Amino acid sequence: MTLSTTPRTTLGRLRERGATDRAALYDVLDAGLVCHVGIVREGAPVVLPTGYGRLDDTLYLHGSTGARWLREGPVCVTVTHTDGLVYARSVFHFSMNYRSAVVLGEARRVTDAAERTAGLRAVVEHLAPGSWGYARTPNRRELAATVVLAVDLAEASVKIRTGPPSDDAEDLTDAVWAGVVPVTSIFGTPEPDVHVPAGAVPPPHVVLRGRS
Amino acid sequence: MTLSTTPRTTLGRLRERGATDRAALYDVLDAGLVCHVGIVREGAPVVLPTGYGRLDDTLYLHGSTGARWLREGPVCVTVTHTDGLVYARSVFHFSMNYRSAVVLGEARRVTDAAERTAGLRAVVEHLAPGSWGYARTPNRRELAATVVLAVDLAEASVKIRTGPPSDDAEDLTDAVWAGVVPVTSIFGTPEPDVHVPAGAVPPPHVVLRGRS
Repeated sequence: MTLSTTPRTTLGRLRERGATDRAALYDVLDAGLVCHVGIVREGAPVVLPTGYGRLDDTLYLHGSTGARWLREGPVCVTVTHTDGLVYARSVFHFSMNYRSAVVLGEARRVTDAAERTAGLRAVVEHLAPGSWGYARTPNRRELAATVVLAVDLAEASVKIRTGPPSDDAEDLTDAVWAGVVPVTSIFGTPEPDVHVPAGAVPPPHVVLRGRS
Repeated sequence: MTLSTTPRTTLGRLRERGATDRAALYDVLDAGLVCHVGIVREGAPVVLPTGYGRLDDTLYLHGSTGARWLREGPVCVTVTHTDGLVYARSVFHFSMNYRSAVVLGEARRVTDAAERTAGLRAVVEHLAPGSWGYARTPNRRELAATVVLAVDLAEASVKIRTGPPSDDAEDLTDAVWAGVVPVTSIFGTPEPDVHVPAGAVPPPHVVLRGRS
């Protein structure tokens, strides 16, 4: 299934880096930890990092009822993975290998109780798979303090760069090292909170997260 | 030196996570690889990942003259480091350890030739220290195809979360594992381009980048 290509999501440049299938969008979103949410406040853009979750073609965001950015309105949600530093023969062709997804939409405040719970579960399970149903679920007071926003994934674009530098042919004979330094995000050994009894081992879902 | 605290950059929530000195801003910016730039296009926010560089209190962005987002106007530049997944006893207190910087300003198109070169150099040296002066510097054609934008660092905020989960006291006795899974970004072994002669070793600045 292809992504919509509205005028807003048709890539202006470097179209060869564009991916147009929905599976690519899901892959980039599902592999991320934080997204960067853009809103407009008093005519100026504001970009904030936050967690998120996905259920089919809906992205969920959550936060405190006191958070000023968690409002209905036009929103852009961007998820980026940095995969490599690209060293070229000319500084003009220095680049990064990356995967990014840009979602444009209208944030909708979720009011239905079941969808609110599903959205919160999606956010928690995205960050820490296996944690919903292991840790205590939200009580009435916590739910009342939480805003859940939904963003439809209808309008989105994916951009991916992989591989070596794109040097000009006339630079290839320069005695200059060129190539890629890979960048990877890794999870370390779980560090127990001070109140966890000494010797208690982390549950499998935490250990597995550390190895993923 | 403290950061300005305009109404726009005074943190609305979780003020204990705010850092107000300029050194903290520099630290977060200098340790990043990509920033997320927010602009307003036809009334809606657009957030795109891109490289950047810093010289004193000016942030530089660059790109193709054909890039639609590289225009003068209000801009938000956000840099985020994800340092850990915070597992709590209650899903309400799940969180992330992170460092983020949010810069609000007006993008200024740099026209002065010396400042354009300095800005481009800052961007390249930020991504790949030691590369300016090793790789070929931009020629007239490449410079003509490149836009350099400057953003003043006058209006900015820094937010940092570290440490264990902030569970409610009544949840601490639950037999639930809680703690932090560290997240780190690492550089791998440099992968030479196919045109690099077999056996050629990467120069020290590339090897050092891989170990940093």
